[in-house]
Amino acid sequence: MANDANGRPAPGSRGRGRRPAEEVRAEVLHAVGELLLTEGTAQLTFERVARVSGVSKTTLYKWWPSKGALALDGYFHAVEDTLAFPDTGDVRADLLAQLRAFTHVMTRTPGGRILTELIGAAQTDADLATAYRQLYSAQRRALAAERLRHARELGQIRPDVDVQVLVDQLWGAVYHRLLIPDEPVDDAFVTALVTNLLDGVCPRPA
Amino acid sequence: MANDANGRPAPGSRGRGRRPAEEVRAEVLHAVGELLLTEGTAQLTFERVARVSGVSKTTLYKWWPSKGALALDGYFHAVEDTLAFPDTGDVRADLLAQLRAFTHVMTRTPGGRILTELIGAAQTDADLATAYRQLYSAQRRALAAERLRHARELGQIRPDVDVQVLVDQLWGAVYHRLLIPDEPVDDAFVTALVTNLLDGVCPRPA
Repeated sequence: MANDANGRPAPGSRGRGRRPAEEVRAEVLHAVGELLLTEGTAQLTFERVARVSGVSKTTLYKWWPSKGALALDGYFHAVEDTLAFPDTGDVRADLLAQLRAFTHVMTRTPGGRILTELIGAAQTDADLATAYRQLYSAQRRALAAERLRHARELGQIRPDVDVQVLVDQLWGAVYHRLLIPDEPVDDAFVTALVTNLLDGVCPRPA
Repeated sequence: MANDANGRPAPGSRGRGRRPAEEVRAEVLHAVGELLLTEGTAQLTFERVARVSGVSKTTLYKWWPSKGALALDGYFHAVEDTLAFPDTGDVRADLLAQLRAFTHVMTRTPGGRILTELIGAAQTDADLATAYRQLYSAQRRALAAERLRHARELGQIRPDVDVQVLVDQLWGAVYHRLLIPDEPVDDAFVTALVTNLLDGVCPRPA
């Protein structure tokens, strides 16, 4: 984009409908998210996204070097609101609510298959593995950790607890059942995850 | 094999070194395990296993319909002793010991890569997913659950706890970090997994 010294678009650069890059980018991600959540990854191609969004393939490739990167960025933005981490001040209720929303997306929408296939492919594709962490999992982890740290500050979680380990024992445990489906991902499972971890599974001293 | 009515090998059927099928099978699995733990899955082919074990490819294919099935069965047997679930009567010490052995195999031997690549491929290969569950994960889950149920019987775990959920919150949490390596699999992680789950992360009432 041709900007002047103050970062404003230079006169005329918005002619012929030219829009700020961030706006175009957000529209592409929105289109990708819609495609993914209605049709899954199989139908997602740069051709199709270029056609739907009106953005050239060259620009798309400049922003997202692979289909995996495009899918992950689109998926992250598509589920951002649905999978937000509520903070009502009650960590138990909030974890249950978030994990129920999460397992709903993972078992009742194409979300589960999108992520398990990307995680699967990432095991033998180092670029995809990096994209997965940078564009999806590290950001989801950071949002979960932020909510858990707040509970720790309020004294609802012991001060010595590493909140990152809780991410693996809650959401990681769900991913385990999704990736290796020996046992069901149902509401009893979600409830047990939270109860076990907050209260411990040893008998409480009387 | 030609057996008589009592299931004993018929006279002469052991000529030319013919051995009981179970013995041959065990030898093949041993050879596969050795190959896997020294070289990983890339070098594992039916050709090579036939050569090393002296068993025909036809027989190998009859017993294991795919390379994945052969690898999973061989791997399960190769790690069976190393990854046994100790039972000293102290569930906390035993879980720590087993999880340390497990994370050692997963991070310091080809074991981690073997399993993460098989789990990865299983996301888009239904036959491999079935083989994975039947020949590996369901059996490992059963062994872990047996140990945990014993602790529950002894009153070391609350009676209302579903031990299968604990499998996901301990070993499943490790798989999560192996498959999506945002955070390290180290001893602090293993210790935290056990402490969090047995004691809970909420502050204990004074």
